Amino acid sequence: MYKAPVDDISFTLKHVAGLKPALDSGAFGDLGEDLVDAILAEAGRFASEEVAPLYKIGDEHGAVLKDAAVTTPPGWRALYRNWIDGGWNALSGPEEFGGQGLPTMLGVAALEMWNSAAMAFGIGPTLTMGAVEALDKHASEALKAKYLAKLVSGEWMGTMNLTEPQAGSDLAALRSRAEPAGDGTYRIFGQKIFITYGEHDFTDNIIHLVLARLPDAPAGTRGISLFLVPKFLVNDDGSLGARNDVFCSGLEHKLGIHASPTCTMIYGDGFQGAAPGAIGWLIGEENKGLACMFTMMNNARLCVGMQGVAVAEAATQKAIAYANERRQGKASDYAGSGMAPIVHHPDVQRNLLTMTALTQIARAISYSCAHAIDLARVSAGDQAAHWRDRANLLTPLAKAFSTDVGVDVASLGVQVHGGMGFIEETGAAALYRDARIAPIYEGTNGIQAIDLVARKLPLGGGEHVHRYIAELKRIADEVRTSNLQGFGRTAETLDRALDDLTEATRFLQKLLADGRLDEAQAGATPYLRLISLAAGGAYLARGGLAEQNRIALCRFFAENLLGEVSALKDRVIDGAESLAAAGKTLISA
Amino acid sequence: MYKAPVDDISFTLKHVAGLKPALDSGAFGDLGEDLVDAILAEAGRFASEEVAPLYKIGDEHGAVLKDAAVTTPPGWRALYRNWIDGGWNALSGPEEFGGQGLPTMLGVAALEMWNSAAMAFGIGPTLTMGAVEALDKHASEALKAKYLAKLVSGEWMGTMNLTEPQAGSDLAALRSRAEPAGDGTYRIFGQKIFITYGEHDFTDNIIHLVLARLPDAPAGTRGISLFLVPKFLVNDDGSLGARNDVFCSGLEHKLGIHASPTCTMIYGDGFQGAAPGAIGWLIGEENKGLACMFTMMNNARLCVGMQGVAVAEAATQKAIAYANERRQGKASDYAGSGMAPIVHHPDVQRNLLTMTALTQIARAISYSCAHAIDLARVSAGDQAAHWRDRANLLTPLAKAFSTDVGVDVASLGVQVHGGMGFIEETGAAALYRDARIAPIYEGTNGIQAIDLVARKLPLGGGEHVHRYIAELKRIADEVRTSNLQGFGRTAETLDRALDDLTEATRFLQKLLADGRLDEAQAGATPYLRLISLAAGGAYLARGGLAEQNRIALCRFFAENLLGEVSALKDRVIDGAESLAAAGKTLISA
Repeated sequence: MYKAPVDDISFTLKHVAGLKPALDSGAFGDLGEDLVDAILAEAGRFASEEVAPLYKIGDEHGAVLKDAAVTTPPGWRALYRNWIDGGWNALSGPEEFGGQGLPTMLGVAALEMWNSAAMAFGIGPTLTMGAVEALDKHASEALKAKYLAKLVSGEWMGTMNLTEPQAGSDLAALRSRAEPAGDGTYRIFGQKIFITYGEHDFTDNIIHLVLARLPDAPAGTRGISLFLVPKFLVNDDGSLGARNDVFCSGLEHKLGIHASPTCTMIYGDGFQGAAPGAIGWLIGEENKGLACMFTMMNNARLCVGMQGVAVAEAATQKAIAYANERRQGKASDYAGSGMAPIVHHPDVQRNLLTMTALTQIARAISYSCAHAIDLARVSAGDQAAHWRDRANLLTPLAKAFSTDVGVDVASLGVQVHGGMGFIEETGAAALYRDARIAPIYEGTNGIQAIDLVARKLPLGGGEHVHRYIAELKRIADEVRTSNLQGFGRTAETLDRALDDLTEATRFLQKLLADGRLDEAQAGATPYLRLISLAAGGAYLARGGLAEQNRIALCRFFAENLLGEVSALKDRVIDGAESLAAAGKTLISA
Repeated sequence: MYKAPVDDISFTLKHVAGLKPALDSGAFGDLGEDLVDAILAEAGRFASEEVAPLYKIGDEHGAVLKDAAVTTPPGWRALYRNWIDGGWNALSGPEEFGGQGLPTMLGVAALEMWNSAAMAFGIGPTLTMGAVEALDKHASEALKAKYLAKLVSGEWMGTMNLTEPQAGSDLAALRSRAEPAGDGTYRIFGQKIFITYGEHDFTDNIIHLVLARLPDAPAGTRGISLFLVPKFLVNDDGSLGARNDVFCSGLEHKLGIHASPTCTMIYGDGFQGAAPGAIGWLIGEENKGLACMFTMMNNARLCVGMQGVAVAEAATQKAIAYANERRQGKASDYAGSGMAPIVHHPDVQRNLLTMTALTQIARAISYSCAHAIDLARVSAGDQAAHWRDRANLLTPLAKAFSTDVGVDVASLGVQVHGGMGFIEETGAAALYRDARIAPIYEGTNGIQAIDLVARKLPLGGGEHVHRYIAELKRIADEVRTSNLQGFGRTAETLDRALDDLTEATRFLQKLLADGRLDEAQAGATPYLRLISLAAGGAYLARGGLAEQNRIALCRFFAENLLGEVSALKDRVIDGAESLAAAGKTLISA
């Protein structure tokens, strides 16, 4: 069973990602490291003791649809109510609407724990927080007054309605439409698919944020507007009014996260004899819906990245525990009687160390992204711009690298369990199933890689990424001059990896400058992994510099896993031509 | 839906693995390439048209246990009967007992197709063929006469009963026992787990091969004997007699291959009021059971490797088809109207080409292993020894590399499908689930890697592997001198990869010579991947030399994927010390 790694999380926040600058800014009142630790400990307790025990029934039972109503698995509604009663939904919500306004770093650390305990649980509130952010930034005061406090407390949940059957990664193809009713409201029509927690029994009302086109809106992404569509209309006194014309017509039968209802939502089809048209309110300006949605998407991407970290952590814990219990064969360093616990076998150790290192790296990158978001919020002027750029740079890494790690580590976790790993009762297989969605939703990892190369490398006139690399270089320098024992060739391999990163970065920037976008895109995925591994190596080293007992893992990573970076660089620089040549053969006549 | 890639399979047999020397030996009568193609075409038709349509119901329905009887999914029994009626079970069985005695190369090619169509179907006959091989080599004439013809035809199926709860990878811990009954038979007692097709409704009788200990047998692996235990006793006229005291007490609830019943088998518990003790017959000599079992395990390892190839092929086909249908976004080289099929996007092409290349490499390695088995069979003296060594060398590659490829390619297949990949109806997710068992059973891939390093590198006084590398080197030379267009830097990268392979090989051989076994084991897994990628690059090049339209993929592999080899070499040579240092931290106090 999952046990929240509160010490590891606290260490990474404080000594790797850098919690102190955010606390010292004064923007978070008298929040100090001790209070942060107390909050983490309590979140860890809730995740381990309240959420994790309901994982299995959630996976086995799943969400069930009947007569347009979705029932969550036994115990899950009560779990959610306890969770919001504990104030966890409001953790990083705006104080004006009852939130605790705590740093994003703390929010994502807690989020990691909910997701480790049960990813199908953790994903729901993520969407609510996205809705809170979009409303807080873009909605009218009237809408905020009516909806925000209840979304911040978790009394109501929010959803994001983007995808339609023909419009996934490419929202330009979106067809849902919104007609002005003449009274300031709109009538929404259309079908949305893959809507996470689109319908459920956790809360009495559900607030849908829906992308749709106004009449005569321009084609493509510049003709999309964002609307708020509540499941139940809300009276001026806050009580619930009539049922709106939106309903769930189907649940997807998914590989994993079974307890999370993935809904097909029908807007404006005359549900239960209503006059057709779901009543909605415009958020932000007409035809600027995508910009509003991106507000919540950036945050949602980091949150999905936390799912990658979370499932990797859960899989690693489970595998290490199993490897210490399960006995097979002899091992030279095992002096006990009978068969040795398999954790003594070097090949098993390789799997477990790979899992541990990748998990810690993904966590460090993701928390560093949250750190940048916090510092952008508490800073002004150039500093704010610097940290905004940093957050933008790290978001695709946090999302894509962490979720790839989630899949890879969960797969290794199954492997460490041997035959038991393939049996569902062990739980390792369920993590392998759950993990697989995270590289896909909130923008596939391929899209993240293209975003990184095409939109993030040009930040700060192309210099922001080099400033970041320079910071990482200084960590390698510190290792070299530290005189600490046990780092082995860490400084040397890290230096080389960062040089490779610089070379690949300049190469891609040159391609962009020359307008050779296809070649840049061809190198995007290996580049994302390259920068993530190099940054990850530096973050592990920073951890080792701060705490002696972390050096061994840092060295294992530097001497066993970081070498991949050189091949990735070659792939970025030399791979595009052969990819294009061979790629043509894939296209059907 | 899966369509058997008969042309690709035929090409790989003929031009990459080398079918001709086996045919030319005369050991297979007048079997020529044309007849081979006709057999492949008919197997492909059966796999595509008969097996594949039953995949989905097999996955959804699964095998069901009631009152110790297992029912396979609707249609599966009839499928199996049709399949044996077509003579497919007898394909490479011994002619003396009604088999067609065809080359192993043809057998594994057909096996690939059954497994691509439905891995849960393909695994059953694999075990029967293992039982055939063990009986053919080690059983008494009386046992052969009674059982072999019906196992060869598929009228009865066979099983392998090794694993017990405490004895998986380490069979020394095995506890099942066999008591001599005084009449030449034995009474078997014990519990076996993870028994594939241990009970089912395909056939009227099931022939279990069971490892157990005789009274006073030595401890460890030298005290294990092999027994034949039929579900129903067989009368001298071949008719079925009394029900034996063996039954299925449970089915595992597995991640994938749901239609394949994974049974807990109870021997000697007085099933249905019988006098306790399952009646069994000794196969081979007392206490030499493991040697007999290894006969079938080597073959079974190649067969499991084919499952890796098979699931990778199925996933690749599905992903390429989807990428040609699904439209999202614009692409510079797409001149049609509306959104471009996603196959036009470079990042999608990278995924698809990676899938295609890895699948072809795994196939080439596995067929080359089968080729060596065939040539060992038809050769004499030094030649036979040479090919036996080659088969032994390639078996762990065929098993472990191919099944790792199966998992990785199935995972990429889900990714290419985007959100639809996570939905079970698409079928991509089912392949991702099925694929995950193959790196585990028949010896985990970690065990394969250790087998490769500890037992296979020393073959031929340590020189066999270097002769193999020299053969691969000659392919790189041919590319260099071929003057064929389009190979790019293939010769250069392949040469470098093979040099890395030589260096890593000599390093490990030195460790073995020095008795530094832990360090050798620490490098085993990266070494197995290193030799597989280097060999795979050479096999792709051999394909390119034979057929111009295969050059582009060869170059893509050489310039995009082969670079990993250098990092793997470093991991083999420099990784053990840091692994050992960090590994200690994983061990619970």
